[in-house]
Amino acid sequence: MLDLVIIGAGPAGITAAVYAARKKMKILVIAKDIGGQTALSGDIENYTGYQFVTGPELVSKFQDHMKRYGITLKENEEVEAIKKKENGVYIKTNKSEYESKTLIIASGKRSRELGVPGEKEFKNKGITYCATCDGPLFSGKEVTVIGGGNSALDAALQLMNIAKHTYLINITKGLTGDRIMQEKVKNNDRVTILNNTYVVAVLGDKLVTGIRIKKDGKEERLSLQGIFVEIGLIPNSEFVKDIKKNEHGEIKVDSYNHTNIPGIFAAGDVTDVPEKQIIIAAGEGAKATLGAFRYLARLK
Amino acid sequence: MLDLVIIGAGPAGITAAVYAARKKMKILVIAKDIGGQTALSGDIENYTGYQFVTGPELVSKFQDHMKRYGITLKENEEVEAIKKKENGVYIKTNKSEYESKTLIIASGKRSRELGVPGEKEFKNKGITYCATCDGPLFSGKEVTVIGGGNSALDAALQLMNIAKHTYLINITKGLTGDRIMQEKVKNNDRVTILNNTYVVAVLGDKLVTGIRIKKDGKEERLSLQGIFVEIGLIPNSEFVKDIKKNEHGEIKVDSYNHTNIPGIFAAGDVTDVPEKQIIIAAGEGAKATLGAFRYLARLK
Repeated sequence: MLDLVIIGAGPAGITAAVYAARKKMKILVIAKDIGGQTALSGDIENYTGYQFVTGPELVSKFQDHMKRYGITLKENEEVEAIKKKENGVYIKTNKSEYESKTLIIASGKRSRELGVPGEKEFKNKGITYCATCDGPLFSGKEVTVIGGGNSALDAALQLMNIAKHTYLINITKGLTGDRIMQEKVKNNDRVTILNNTYVVAVLGDKLVTGIRIKKDGKEERLSLQGIFVEIGLIPNSEFVKDIKKNEHGEIKVDSYNHTNIPGIFAAGDVTDVPEKQIIIAAGEGAKATLGAFRYLARLK
Repeated sequence: MLDLVIIGAGPAGITAAVYAARKKMKILVIAKDIGGQTALSGDIENYTGYQFVTGPELVSKFQDHMKRYGITLKENEEVEAIKKKENGVYIKTNKSEYESKTLIIASGKRSRELGVPGEKEFKNKGITYCATCDGPLFSGKEVTVIGGGNSALDAALQLMNIAKHTYLINITKGLTGDRIMQEKVKNNDRVTILNNTYVVAVLGDKLVTGIRIKKDGKEERLSLQGIFVEIGLIPNSEFVKDIKKNEHGEIKVDSYNHTNIPGIFAAGDVTDVPEKQIIIAAGEGAKATLGAFRYLARLK
């Protein structure tokens, strides 16, 4: 029987694994892919200690760190179901079955996509899903934020100090985010709000050059270099059934990263911990393992 | 008026500063010293992305990261008092006074010391205050853990799988930590528990070679290479008066790192967030700045 199974190999899962290996716990990591959203990131400038690193580079450093400890990694394997048993947790994947005394769910989130032509092609070539991560790369450029809720307003607030001009493209009649944030965005002459508008296509050559939009039923073209899609995130928590989640499908954890089921922990973007940042997810992964270790230490 | 003042330049404070600078907030960092407890650490092997780095090396990387953003740092400056005002926070140091819309307290913790001869001399030369950080460096060695509470038992549980032999030295009649942890320690023949015992002196040459102890009133000498002092930590929160703390003097924060005073945030070891780890403190620092940014965005 394993001491700990970790689902996911993004910053949270990998940090959890490193901490567990250093405690000589018998562990296994099950991951659909390596690096999670970090692998999809462009330049990263806010992982403390690395001034400049690309997403794939940082993932490769994380992976090397994990490899050093000889951690067993089941790659390209997807968890289909988990079930709490009397003495631990049963985990079923598309390839096998496992039993473990404790479990950390660190399966991350995925961004909701626009689903328009050109989106896949220009991902990380002008299209990004994280203003906090990538905003500073668009200093002096023309950009658009797609969305009308708090995360879109938050992105616009960040970008209006950085970009030359920001178009906020919102599919509904009016913005839905916090009033005060709305006012700040509305009062800034470097932001243009386009309501009743949606994106029809992403245009580009090697990099994004613009978008085609439909406003009040009429199509037009906007020239710009950056597209920030902020229409929501989807936690990869569909396989989690009997554990408490919030209204967004995020797994609820306490300050020790424990879920409501004894022995089952969660960390990183899949949880209700605020913000979607590599350094935060890594810290949460460490906390989850230390929580699981303490839980095991107190078990008979 | 500043947007944000950050007290402390350990992993939490520096990460908070990097995040704030990237949001173009007007900030200032006030720090007694740079690096906090990290600067005192030996080899660090659990900061994800760096397989091997020394405490001072990592601090220097953090500092370079901060310098890149031209952040104003008031070094060797100690905060004496903070006071919430109507429109922000007033901060008084031993050298000056500041006013800011928001504040992040990231002043860290310090380890309670033994206060015996040889302790200062052999710090990081065999004496350490963090089993999670430094335990793996003592593989196959003889070590001692000083203390009898949960953190001492936790250290002993970690070390008994790593070290050749572990002496648990406890000043009281019996251990005070959790029963189940006590039993695990007691049942392991690689651990010797010495109750009614305290350390009189640390012995060494270039590195630690042993300790002199007093057991039931009689002095004796133990040969060993590692000393893990686990007699408690002291949060650097003495200057914080009107903010809620727990019974250990740690500042209470919510999941957005907000204290009970609007506009005052806290992050890292000085808070009630569990565990004392660099990667966790860094993540908390990022959360605190993003919390402060959102707070400001919602202010009139």
